[in-house]
Amino acid sequence: MAANTFGELFRVTTFGESHGAGIGVVVDGVPAGMSVDLDAIQAQLRRRRPGQSELTTTRDEADALEVLSGLFEGRTTGAPVAMWIRNKDVRSSDYASIRDVFRPGHADYTWFKKHGFRDWRGGGRTSGRETAARVAAGALARQLLARLGVGVLGHVVRIGPIEARTFDEAQIERNAVRCADAVAAEAMRAAIEKAKGEGDSLGGVIELVARGVPAGWGDPVFDKLDARIGAAMLSIGAVKGVEIGDGFELASRRGSEANDAILPGGFASNHMGGVLGGISNGAPVVVRIAVKPTPSISLAQQTVDIQGQARVIEVPGRHDPCICPRLVPVAESMLALVLCDAALRQRALAPLDMQTNSGARGGDGA
Amino acid sequence: MAANTFGELFRVTTFGESHGAGIGVVVDGVPAGMSVDLDAIQAQLRRRRPGQSELTTTRDEADALEVLSGLFEGRTTGAPVAMWIRNKDVRSSDYASIRDVFRPGHADYTWFKKHGFRDWRGGGRTSGRETAARVAAGALARQLLARLGVGVLGHVVRIGPIEARTFDEAQIERNAVRCADAVAAEAMRAAIEKAKGEGDSLGGVIELVARGVPAGWGDPVFDKLDARIGAAMLSIGAVKGVEIGDGFELASRRGSEANDAILPGGFASNHMGGVLGGISNGAPVVVRIAVKPTPSISLAQQTVDIQGQARVIEVPGRHDPCICPRLVPVAESMLALVLCDAALRQRALAPLDMQTNSGARGGDGA
Amino acid sequence: MAANTFGELFRVTTFGESHGAGIGVVVDGVPAGMSVDLDAIQAQLRRRRPGQSELTTTRDEADALEVLSGLFEGRTTGAPVAMWIRNKDVRSSDYASIRDVFRPGHADYTWFKKHGFRDWRGGGRTSGRETAARVAAGALARQLLARLGVGVLGHVVRIGPIEARTFDEAQIERNAVRCADAVAAEAMRAAIEKAKGEGDSLGGVIELVARGVPAGWGDPVFDKLDARIGAAMLSIGAVKGVEIGDGFELASRRGSEANDAILPGGFASNHMGGVLGGISNGAPVVVRIAVKPTPSISLAQQTVDIQGQARVIEVPGRHDPCICPRLVPVAESMLALVLCDAALRQRALAPLDMQTNSGARGGDGA
Amino acid sequence: MAANTFGELFRVTTFGESHGAGIGVVVDGVPAGMSVDLDAIQAQLRRRRPGQSELTTTRDEADALEVLSGLFEGRTTGAPVAMWIRNKDVRSSDYASIRDVFRPGHADYTWFKKHGFRDWRGGGRTSGRETAARVAAGALARQLLARLGVGVLGHVVRIGPIEARTFDEAQIERNAVRCADAVAAEAMRAAIEKAKGEGDSLGGVIELVARGVPAGWGDPVFDKLDARIGAAMLSIGAVKGVEIGDGFELASRRGSEANDAILPGGFASNHMGGVLGGISNGAPVVVRIAVKPTPSISLAQQTVDIQGQARVIEVPGRHDPCICPRLVPVAESMLALVLCDAALRQRALAPLDMQTNSGARGGDGA
Repeated sequence: MAANTFGELFRVTTFGESHGAGIGVVVDGVPAGMSVDLDAIQAQLRRRRPGQSELTTTRDEADALEVLSGLFEGRTTGAPVAMWIRNKDVRSSDYASIRDVFRPGHADYTWFKKHGFRDWRGGGRTSGRETAARVAAGALARQLLARLGVGVLGHVVRIGPIEARTFDEAQIERNAVRCADAVAAEAMRAAIEKAKGEGDSLGGVIELVARGVPAGWGDPVFDKLDARIGAAMLSIGAVKGVEIGDGFELASRRGSEANDAILPGGFASNHMGGVLGGISNGAPVVVRIAVKPTPSISLAQQTVDIQGQARVIEVPGRHDPCICPRLVPVAESMLALVLCDAALRQRALAPLDMQTNSGARGGDGA
Repeated sequence: MAANTFGELFRVTTFGESHGAGIGVVVDGVPAGMSVDLDAIQAQLRRRRPGQSELTTTRDEADALEVLSGLFEGRTTGAPVAMWIRNKDVRSSDYASIRDVFRPGHADYTWFKKHGFRDWRGGGRTSGRETAARVAAGALARQLLARLGVGVLGHVVRIGPIEARTFDEAQIERNAVRCADAVAAEAMRAAIEKAKGEGDSLGGVIELVARGVPAGWGDPVFDKLDARIGAAMLSIGAVKGVEIGDGFELASRRGSEANDAILPGGFASNHMGGVLGGISNGAPVVVRIAVKPTPSISLAQQTVDIQGQARVIEVPGRHDPCICPRLVPVAESMLALVLCDAALRQRALAPLDMQTNSGARGGDGA
Repeated sequence: MAANTFGELFRVTTFGESHGAGIGVVVDGVPAGMSVDLDAIQAQLRRRRPGQSELTTTRDEADALEVLSGLFEGRTTGAPVAMWIRNKDVRSSDYASIRDVFRPGHADYTWFKKHGFRDWRGGGRTSGRETAARVAAGALARQLLARLGVGVLGHVVRIGPIEARTFDEAQIERNAVRCADAVAAEAMRAAIEKAKGEGDSLGGVIELVARGVPAGWGDPVFDKLDARIGAAMLSIGAVKGVEIGDGFELASRRGSEANDAILPGGFASNHMGGVLGGISNGAPVVVRIAVKPTPSISLAQQTVDIQGQARVIEVPGRHDPCICPRLVPVAESMLALVLCDAALRQRALAPLDMQTNSGARGGDGA
Repeated sequence: MAANTFGELFRVTTFGESHGAGIGVVVDGVPAGMSVDLDAIQAQLRRRRPGQSELTTTRDEADALEVLSGLFEGRTTGAPVAMWIRNKDVRSSDYASIRDVFRPGHADYTWFKKHGFRDWRGGGRTSGRETAARVAAGALARQLLARLGVGVLGHVVRIGPIEARTFDEAQIERNAVRCADAVAAEAMRAAIEKAKGEGDSLGGVIELVARGVPAGWGDPVFDKLDARIGAAMLSIGAVKGVEIGDGFELASRRGSEANDAILPGGFASNHMGGVLGGISNGAPVVVRIAVKPTPSISLAQQTVDIQGQARVIEVPGRHDPCICPRLVPVAESMLALVLCDAALRQRALAPLDMQTNSGARGGDGA
């Protein structure tokens, strides 16, 4: 890992700024000879793009994918795959009024303290726009995972005080919130609209599930699968918490209530969220993340400028009143990147006489 | 990072097993010329060691520290510092009855699926005993951090259903639970004793605070300070959740309630837990982790053996009915390792004309 | 390190193919606030570009630099700097006749054996064209090194059997060979023209010198400065040998002839090439690399096709009869990358109470 | 990589000093279930140990191996394998007279400049004694490579002015020089004795050959197999040059003389030393390294002390008049580490539908 690189074998390096030329990503470590479905990558980018519904910022970006390298005749060659998404609808003038003022809840202040200099246009490198690169890379990772029988799914389970009560997978992409409970989705939508109308914003919780992960992925003691997932999720700007399986609920339980009994056919329950001792156990990998409310609000806030003088700010620009719906594909992508890297690592380090559980025969697992 | 190595510049590699010769650690990247207080390292090991109170396993290990390399005349030389803690009170016979059976909630099953072979004595490499190495390394990291003006503190805020209500730092090391609320501590102790008497176990929540961290540590986009903290915490065996600042609470809030206003003298609140956009903001870094109940319980549980046959297990051996008190120094150590690594990285990458905020003059910060 | 990434703190990731859209590079770990001279980067690219003299391939590429990210108002921001060089003069049809045949001396055969699939157009990823990305990154590294008082210089000291006898730095860029001996340069030029006329090619030796490197860069035991230089040089396609200081000559000497005496004012000689025990000693860093003759020759050669059948090949396409002149800026760039990374690392790990010898005040060294 | 760690997947971390408690190594990334022959590791350590012949230092170290972790019932478990070699025959008093004086040709001066503090006893961390750890790790790597059908061999081809003229593999371990030419070996021995008698020392050249390496190992563009080999070799203290295949000889040749023709049965020659475009081609991997004469000589030399005052030094202590014989197993070990890491990486990144060429069935290659 390093500041702008994620993963060890399946390695993703992102670059670009919100109001620069565009957002890009280099994916190194993609096995050769794999057919790549570019439409499927574009489809994932559409799930993240701004302007997709009335719940998101009105910045209008098609987020059209350009492949700069690594494919030949539609297949990977073993060379790094570079992808590029040009910025189109840039209105940096929106930010001119706050070039010397730090927006509360943003990285403005800390980037400046760290680097002594910053690109103030739309948050520069710290903008959520950077996650477009993650989604492109994640979409490629998904195609590799699919070959191994693994699929990744995300959905919103809470917005502000409203929780999803039911799970109907088919609902997720049918509502603008990406909630699997159609009734809750409608209440969530209304809550977001209300907050937006009041110049405010809302947070929420997203749940992720990876199915088909064979037992054996993840590397104790420090590269436990959950450790890598934790890093992946908390590297997303707005995420302030992550739990695996029953997570914080387990703190209130007894061992007899928390342990998943093992039956000849598999685990009797999944309190551990598919990870035991840092290694996948063959059950679905379940992760939940806490998303803070969008810090860009039009209500007046106290802050300081770069001279340290007190200021009042009403954040201008076009913003999402709740980032959760658009974070679903981002979080899915980060989970896919973690799993892809773990899969390749297990190919490398499996016992010499063991059929690797991520090998050519595809995900029949352990 | 790699399976048994943590950190990039301040790099820690651990080795050893629960019932092998001992537990060791190599710390690479310690600046030279630093006086090392070995008694202070030993003192931290005592906070983690088994048998320290009636709430812990009765395995009796002094965890006496031996330094194998890297010090000369009491000071670091720039060479890697290797430390070694010999195992003394090993009773592998306790485990002979379960050598072919997987304990629910443990890594037994997944390690076997991953590696096709395992050291069944006391959990082998996956034992919590490995964390002794982390505490030794963390104690060294603390000494470096102290030079920079940074201190790390942990305490138990929940055991099962019981929550701490008050915070009196002086209480923490006065009770066996390591809780800053003396009244809650007593209730927690009773609850642990009760669970133990019933052959069961309890989980809990630990809070960590790092004070004195200057603004500017942490590296967007993937090595955000919170991402590194997430990986560090979830690399501890029993931890299933982590949150920074107000964490999951933020999911229910509005932006106007979540943003920390910035005043000329600093932040008006600390909902963000000292990290903004992945970079420390100068406020205390606040982290909470969810600890699952110890999986080793003497109640009967359903499981399978290595042939996949159904079995019933009553886990033998000597175990902690609640691991939280002993996890406090472990979690503190992991936080110290993250901060130390971030501090060195900021020395490397600070602007050429900026006085590095982790430089020689020590922690006057940004 | 990883396949397409070089360096730990000053990290360079390259992408792109000879006959794809272009060649790109992401440079992560550039300290913020540094003014970047884009013309100087373009000037370095011109030193490497094809078609610069009668001694090089006639492929005509302007190698015009586009900056995709990381600069704002002409200065670095702490975000990754991405640079892109579009391919213009692509004639893939030249290669159609050999798409199923492996060119001797090229990576065609081994890439195919490794990946099972390859981009046969102009060598794809394994083309020397990839080094344009290294030169762009190296040119940025030079600007950082210049701030620290360090400069890097390369020149050709042998072509085939012809050796340079004198050293006049001013001559280097005045002849197409980049030789510091004007008389030898003319003989070298003639030898290259002769080989070209005969459908053959020539190899040579390049010498590199880095001046102003302070004592203290390089990290024993595995990241010795010479180890990193060795990796850097041997990562250049045509390089098959590297030596530091007197190199292979030292094998024939006695200790009393090899040791550099230390005088109060510095070293009395520089047999060690500025590196002692893997750490720079303050003397100029001197490196020599062996460059093999260009494998693309029009003389008939025996080879096989992808079915393993014997074939005779006369390599088509436009090629350099001797790559040495164009490798000079490439090798300089790789040396600059190594030094830049070592400089940042020394900032991170210098003793806490030591003025770092790569600090803002610039290379006054130790 | 990092200062004291080598390799990415098969990762070796060494620690310890010449006159400290001992020398140790942690090997992470060893596939589980592999039977380990400890006698074979000890046998390799004997090939490196001091006092093995009249040509080496008289320091008497048995270099007895202790395994600290990672084995269970004689097999690897997937946990890191830690090995430890205790120092026995330490005479630090030999060095007391030079504690403030820098020995020419040693790391004394540069370590001090870098770290501001040093362990002056026997060179501390920079002593050749550290290579015992590399030989232990390398011996483990060889056992893994043997499973894949790969063997590594080294021999001395030059000492001072004397070159080996013939190659009889059986001779290598029969003479103290480790030369495959019995006649040259005797002349080399005499030359070393003579230099020793005169208080001086000699350098030489070692050749390494790896047989059975399948086509496909090594990762362009930066982790080319030769780049990794270059880093490995130049990380050995006394090595100042490295070449692959015909190396520097190629600089004087034409392409038609340098290219290895490809025949249906394999390569017609091996000028490239088994590496083409940074990827192994199935031919033996051939490497040569230049070893400088031992810097510790008893002849008087000019130097300075830590105050910068001029001094004359006659280096005390027990030293090898020529380190080449003992470097043979060290260099073999480093080559084995590089190959092992490359083999695991190729398992990870081979095409999904390709039988990995480093799989269990062992080195039948491509």
